[in-house]
Amino acid sequence: MTPTDLINIIGTAAFAFSGYLVGYEKRLDMMGVAIAALLTAVGGGMMRDALVSRIPQVFQHTDALVVVFATLAVSWLLHLERRRKAALTAAFITADAVGLAAFSITGAQVGLAMRLNLFGVVVLAFVTAVGGGMARDILVNRMPMILKTDLYGTVAIAIAALLYLFDKIGWNNAYTLNLLFAGGCLLRLAAYHLHWQLPGFQKKR
Amino acid sequence: MTPTDLINIIGTAAFAFSGYLVGYEKRLDMMGVAIAALLTAVGGGMMRDALVSRIPQVFQHTDALVVVFATLAVSWLLHLERRRKAALTAAFITADAVGLAAFSITGAQVGLAMRLNLFGVVVLAFVTAVGGGMARDILVNRMPMILKTDLYGTVAIAIAALLYLFDKIGWNNAYTLNLLFAGGCLLRLAAYHLHWQLPGFQKKR
Amino acid sequence: MTPTDLINIIGTAAFAFSGYLVGYEKRLDMMGVAIAALLTAVGGGMMRDALVSRIPQVFQHTDALVVVFATLAVSWLLHLERRRKAALTAAFITADAVGLAAFSITGAQVGLAMRLNLFGVVVLAFVTAVGGGMARDILVNRMPMILKTDLYGTVAIAIAALLYLFDKIGWNNAYTLNLLFAGGCLLRLAAYHLHWQLPGFQKKR
Repeated sequence: MTPTDLINIIGTAAFAFSGYLVGYEKRLDMMGVAIAALLTAVGGGMMRDALVSRIPQVFQHTDALVVVFATLAVSWLLHLERRRKAALTAAFITADAVGLAAFSITGAQVGLAMRLNLFGVVVLAFVTAVGGGMARDILVNRMPMILKTDLYGTVAIAIAALLYLFDKIGWNNAYTLNLLFAGGCLLRLAAYHLHWQLPGFQKKR
Repeated sequence: MTPTDLINIIGTAAFAFSGYLVGYEKRLDMMGVAIAALLTAVGGGMMRDALVSRIPQVFQHTDALVVVFATLAVSWLLHLERRRKAALTAAFITADAVGLAAFSITGAQVGLAMRLNLFGVVVLAFVTAVGGGMARDILVNRMPMILKTDLYGTVAIAIAALLYLFDKIGWNNAYTLNLLFAGGCLLRLAAYHLHWQLPGFQKKR
Repeated sequence: MTPTDLINIIGTAAFAFSGYLVGYEKRLDMMGVAIAALLTAVGGGMMRDALVSRIPQVFQHTDALVVVFATLAVSWLLHLERRRKAALTAAFITADAVGLAAFSITGAQVGLAMRLNLFGVVVLAFVTAVGGGMARDILVNRMPMILKTDLYGTVAIAIAALLYLFDKIGWNNAYTLNLLFAGGCLLRLAAYHLHWQLPGFQKKR
């Protein structure tokens, strides 16, 4: 198992857990919870593959699904939704940042392998990392948090744009990938804890 | 015309009628009603085809469209939306169960023909049977009923999982298909009338 | 630059500006505004390409993106969202009608080139012209205006159906395209200003 595999597993578990919490919040039944978790964890990759006309990888390789269902089983058995809110949130935000950075890299690499332009690479990274959670929020009728949350989508875009640049100058290697991954996680966590915002039309807080 | 064709026609008409009723409920104009009916009846199949990178079948074969527009014409001419609610609901739920079971089988067969794994087969069945109605509900800003309704999506998943199993052991034939179809319809109708629920986070009623 | 190119540029700019205004209305940050503008202007074409299993054109050609970002930059620098509402609206509705007609023709031509049936040609025109704005509205949790607005989607459908007909009888040429384009713009503008409505289930006003 390579470091990348480990990162992807942590990201998948974090995203599945995020779906589990939304299922609890919206009072869904078991199937609804499973759909919310699967959409969050593997839905983005499915959407990415549909967008570039590949058979979704998760239709042929089941590793990610094992992670999703294991996460659901553990969460359900330990009643994680009832834990103290602050502890849950801190653990969740950290793991979610890992997923965000990991999936952004995965998605961008698909676009680079297909020789897409910068926009294509950014869209694939964005859809892989953020599309599943967005679809989940739309499905249960929540304003997708991506549009409101501190630098969330911006991290995906920044990772993809930098990886595109690195790729063009021959720097797409394990070293820069690890750097982008760590930098992406840190940026997201810093933005979350320090309430960094992009300029725009938001109301002041 | 084979029994499968007949089942598919009934299912298509039921789903088109469901879209018609949503169009009435949401006060849409003619075009909105047609879009709601088409999304419900053929949208799921289009989404399935996009997911596995096939040209949507309904872009090349128009049989299903004839059924949709005939259903709309009859509903409009007979003002079916004004009938006594109880009679409408009973007829609708029954026909809708037929559509659910029929489209789940159609979708699962596409996945089996493409040699997808269990997850892929289940997703295609689910998307074919449930995706169109889901997209319609999102479009008109309703909480997709699938996430709240007694065993609805569960029937699609159960049919697909059993068909996957049957296929692996050489039992994918007319006999087991009819059995799955009848069993799926009955399960959905029993769940609806007896208020069967999966366990989960729902509020007690 | 052909007249078609010019029409497409005006349409893209108009759609990007429409996304900008929605971003302002919903108080999004810079990234949210950019996503809203991109979805409106190039999202429909991406959805169309995914539906017929082509790599989205905008992943390989960046011309449309230049138009989107130039529109955003100008709107932001001139604070267009603060202009007098009536003037903005009039300019916007006109430009938007141009986009609607232009993108309907583009989408229909893709379907004709793939030899789809009438339904396929209409769906591609509709998705290209209307799908992006619809996805944007769903994302920010607005009732998609398409379902409520005077003859909006109907114009896309009428253009596609006529072009299909013209194509079958050998009239798919620059002359009929210009005619369809002008007719589509005029129909939309007349419907908007005269409040033309399709019959249906709407409440009277």
